[in-house]
Amino acid sequence: MRFSRLLIPTTKETPNDATLASHIFLIRGGFIQSVGGSGLYNFLPLGKKVLDKVRAVVKEELDKAGCQEVSLSFVTPASLWQESGRFEKYGKELLRFKDRKNNDFILGPTHEEMMVNLVRQTVKSYKQLPLNLYQINLKFRDEIRPRFGLMRGREFLMKDGYSFHTSQEDMKREFDLMEETYKKIFTRLGLEFKVVEADSGAIGGSGSKEFMVLADSGEDTIVVCDNCEYGANIEAAVRQEKPCDAEAPEALFAKFHTPDTTTIEALSAFFHVDPYYLVKTVAKKALYDEGRTEVVLFALRGSDELQEVKACNAVGANDLADISEEELEAAGLVAGYMGPTVVPEGVRVVLDSNLRDASNMICGANEKEYHLVGNSFKGVEADYHDLVAVQEGDLCPHCGSPLRYTKGIEAGHIFQLGTQYSEPMGATFLDENGKAQPMVMGTYGIGVSRLLAAIIEQNHDDKGCIWTKASAPFDLQLIVSNIKDEAQVALGEELYETLKAKGFDVLFDERKDRFGAKMKDYELLGVPHAIVIGKKLQDGLVEFVTREGLVKEEVSPDEILTVVEQKV
Amino acid sequence: MRFSRLLIPTTKETPNDATLASHIFLIRGGFIQSVGGSGLYNFLPLGKKVLDKVRAVVKEELDKAGCQEVSLSFVTPASLWQESGRFEKYGKELLRFKDRKNNDFILGPTHEEMMVNLVRQTVKSYKQLPLNLYQINLKFRDEIRPRFGLMRGREFLMKDGYSFHTSQEDMKREFDLMEETYKKIFTRLGLEFKVVEADSGAIGGSGSKEFMVLADSGEDTIVVCDNCEYGANIEAAVRQEKPCDAEAPEALFAKFHTPDTTTIEALSAFFHVDPYYLVKTVAKKALYDEGRTEVVLFALRGSDELQEVKACNAVGANDLADISEEELEAAGLVAGYMGPTVVPEGVRVVLDSNLRDASNMICGANEKEYHLVGNSFKGVEADYHDLVAVQEGDLCPHCGSPLRYTKGIEAGHIFQLGTQYSEPMGATFLDENGKAQPMVMGTYGIGVSRLLAAIIEQNHDDKGCIWTKASAPFDLQLIVSNIKDEAQVALGEELYETLKAKGFDVLFDERKDRFGAKMKDYELLGVPHAIVIGKKLQDGLVEFVTREGLVKEEVSPDEILTVVEQKV
Repeated sequence: MRFSRLLIPTTKETPNDATLASHIFLIRGGFIQSVGGSGLYNFLPLGKKVLDKVRAVVKEELDKAGCQEVSLSFVTPASLWQESGRFEKYGKELLRFKDRKNNDFILGPTHEEMMVNLVRQTVKSYKQLPLNLYQINLKFRDEIRPRFGLMRGREFLMKDGYSFHTSQEDMKREFDLMEETYKKIFTRLGLEFKVVEADSGAIGGSGSKEFMVLADSGEDTIVVCDNCEYGANIEAAVRQEKPCDAEAPEALFAKFHTPDTTTIEALSAFFHVDPYYLVKTVAKKALYDEGRTEVVLFALRGSDELQEVKACNAVGANDLADISEEELEAAGLVAGYMGPTVVPEGVRVVLDSNLRDASNMICGANEKEYHLVGNSFKGVEADYHDLVAVQEGDLCPHCGSPLRYTKGIEAGHIFQLGTQYSEPMGATFLDENGKAQPMVMGTYGIGVSRLLAAIIEQNHDDKGCIWTKASAPFDLQLIVSNIKDEAQVALGEELYETLKAKGFDVLFDERKDRFGAKMKDYELLGVPHAIVIGKKLQDGLVEFVTREGLVKEEVSPDEILTVVEQKV
Repeated sequence: MRFSRLLIPTTKETPNDATLASHIFLIRGGFIQSVGGSGLYNFLPLGKKVLDKVRAVVKEELDKAGCQEVSLSFVTPASLWQESGRFEKYGKELLRFKDRKNNDFILGPTHEEMMVNLVRQTVKSYKQLPLNLYQINLKFRDEIRPRFGLMRGREFLMKDGYSFHTSQEDMKREFDLMEETYKKIFTRLGLEFKVVEADSGAIGGSGSKEFMVLADSGEDTIVVCDNCEYGANIEAAVRQEKPCDAEAPEALFAKFHTPDTTTIEALSAFFHVDPYYLVKTVAKKALYDEGRTEVVLFALRGSDELQEVKACNAVGANDLADISEEELEAAGLVAGYMGPTVVPEGVRVVLDSNLRDASNMICGANEKEYHLVGNSFKGVEADYHDLVAVQEGDLCPHCGSPLRYTKGIEAGHIFQLGTQYSEPMGATFLDENGKAQPMVMGTYGIGVSRLLAAIIEQNHDDKGCIWTKASAPFDLQLIVSNIKDEAQVALGEELYETLKAKGFDVLFDERKDRFGAKMKDYELLGVPHAIVIGKKLQDGLVEFVTREGLVKEEVSPDEILTVVEQKV
């Protein structure tokens, strides 16, 4: 296509609110346009082209895997969400509104209810299962703070797929197939990514994996092993058991006067004891549905850190909030001297699994300036959960090598859902014995518009975008340096026609602008390769440019087609 | 694809609310699914496939014509609609809502404001014009009475395009190009259609054309000439001047006592005069912005009928409502005896253009049981407009042949918009002299999801759908009659692989069901052709079926590929 005929409004101005490279370059390159700065974006012609290419890769691989594309209504009757219980539970990110007849609707932030409703009306028998339906459609989440451009917008394009099965085993088979399919998609898109164990939310279970596009700017911390395949979101990461060489503080159970020892460090110094033998007790306010709250003490070894998402899941809360000194006092707790063994009524206690059967532990007495020594948890029945935040250097649960942190952008998430929606919504099938059973479900998402941002986060330099082959808006940019030079223009037109005839998708920059401006646009737009026809044409040379590293090669016009066919 | 692996939930049950063939068969064929019966629809796998095929035809032809595809945010800040003035003006079909921060938004029923906003931020110079941008995206209109399935849903898929120009002439050139492009689209889709002059709304002017898919069930009445190309929506249709042979009631101006003559018939009988010489006076209540109303008298010849849309446009109202006897009385009007010459203060009068310079007219005296004779409109300055509903048999304005009514489904609309949006929203460009000018706009729409309904309205029989070649979900259906017959299955599998390899998109019905059920599904789904492998295979014959007319041909298996290549 001819550059002069396309709307590609490149600009030197960096948007005020932009800090991420993808946000800056997608706007500056005229791929997208912010609508009123409120997390809404228009896709301009080049952005739409990239979006379509990414979307096509996603669709092709899903169709090959036997998934069927549908398209669900974006506007969703609230009644479906009332059936599942999410109309009330879901936070303010759920955009609720009323139509002219005063009926309640929502803009779908996800479509579990809609898809379950579709399937319960159309599938009756085990003979019709399994089934994997997906769509690539709009979603809306009323984010309190939309930011980072396409990374966290309010309206966005998502692939959401849902599978339906007669058994847990068959769902697991499809889950694995989707993992393989997603790997193919991200690989075809030219992304460096890692599949990691993910937090499964309040549902529990280990059946959730995230596809993380590796990038320093990623919002997610992921724990990886360099020796084996293990990787997990920090929210779900586990480690090998971590023993301690230091001597245990053997003592009979007793109360000790411990003035001014309100931290693990102080307590460790006071008793000359490794923090491994101290109990760290963290108080939080757990938030539940309908405004219900509860004070919870999370107790773990002093050598470990609390992972808040794990803690939140452990009590099945919607969120955990910090607790004020006044609230602590009101609950009968003594700040700096709390412990899990002496606890006022009404306060819930959760113990980290590492405390199971621990002995010789020192913990707060819930009394100002007092700790208890000689605590033993041997045989103690309690509410044990994994609460620990894995640290760099902790050992891989699979191979024992040291673990490392890295950053990732969540671009996909696959999830073993079970019967969480099919049961309340009555999506059942008749099994071989004619008995009604709830369908077992899996769910699989890809942030399609977010992928544009993720690709650029991983592939850019200080000049602009560097699109991967499968995502690039064009295969090749053809730049005529000086449009007044007839020889340059003649060769440009000839090459343009020849390349098009050979099936290359070419952006032909035949604008009147200065050469410098054209090169700046090339660097900003990030098409993987370019041919530059410039002054040296009189010496029988044109330039073949590779955007990555801006590598330039001088080639004779006779050879340029061969070079293109080899490298593009 | 294999039928057994696809979700095609065909059913014998006709939905309660369905009267149109397209509504019934699209639901019964499992193409679409109603969501809560409120004008919202899910597209199931087959419906999505047809939608994609239609969409691809639309996109291909637009891209060929130089249009550029974009994708605009569906959720639209109300501020843009406040700029254009439509936030207040647009009726309740505009879905307005507030986000969590209490800002106003709408769900776009159309995207003029959004597109003008896009362009005013990116186009500054005449050098960047002309520009034709389009999208194929969701729209939402909160219809008071959504009905007829995809014909009048609330959420629907639309292609909306907008062009921007430096002059009226250039816009007209693009308008003509879009007319040609739309003709190509509807022709490729295999539709019988008519391009007709359309009502341009309150804006006036003749710059609006509709693309009507001809079908008896169409909601629009269109006036066509069988002798020439003329066609127009009844709301915009005109005719040759209609003279009258009957003798004129020549009389001096006088008031006559005319008891019990409140209708044109009675008045015609009373005076023994052709209705041509009587004035028909119709009172309406015109509704304007912000609840303002006005009583209007529309006067036309007694031989003509009032066309309400024309009448509404004549006074620039949002709508016309019937008026009650009490309201008439309150306005000082006498029902049955109204006329345009004696009118109480505060009542507006609009005269049909056919009354210009008319003489010897009889009209009501606005006094019970009295009419006025000898009225002349010669040289009378008044508010004249075309108010007449063209009748069947009226003469074509172009060639003088008799006009005929037919019914159509509006599937496309192109519109010369001018500067209606660019002026209030400040979308200007700098012309060659560096002077800011408002951009001249055109706008072009196609109801993409509605097209599915229109195709079926035009192409169905009492058994089901008959898709056109370009819109069909598959090229061919391959039906094995008895899945227990090994020879039938073997030939089916072989043909399926061969046909796929030759590039045909085949629906292979290899289900265990009875043959009768499979044929019923075939007829309902409406794939243009089928191969049936049945009992006669033992005599060396298979059947080639054409869905239109259900024509069946017996062919030997050796010849079937040749037949398919010729006819599919």
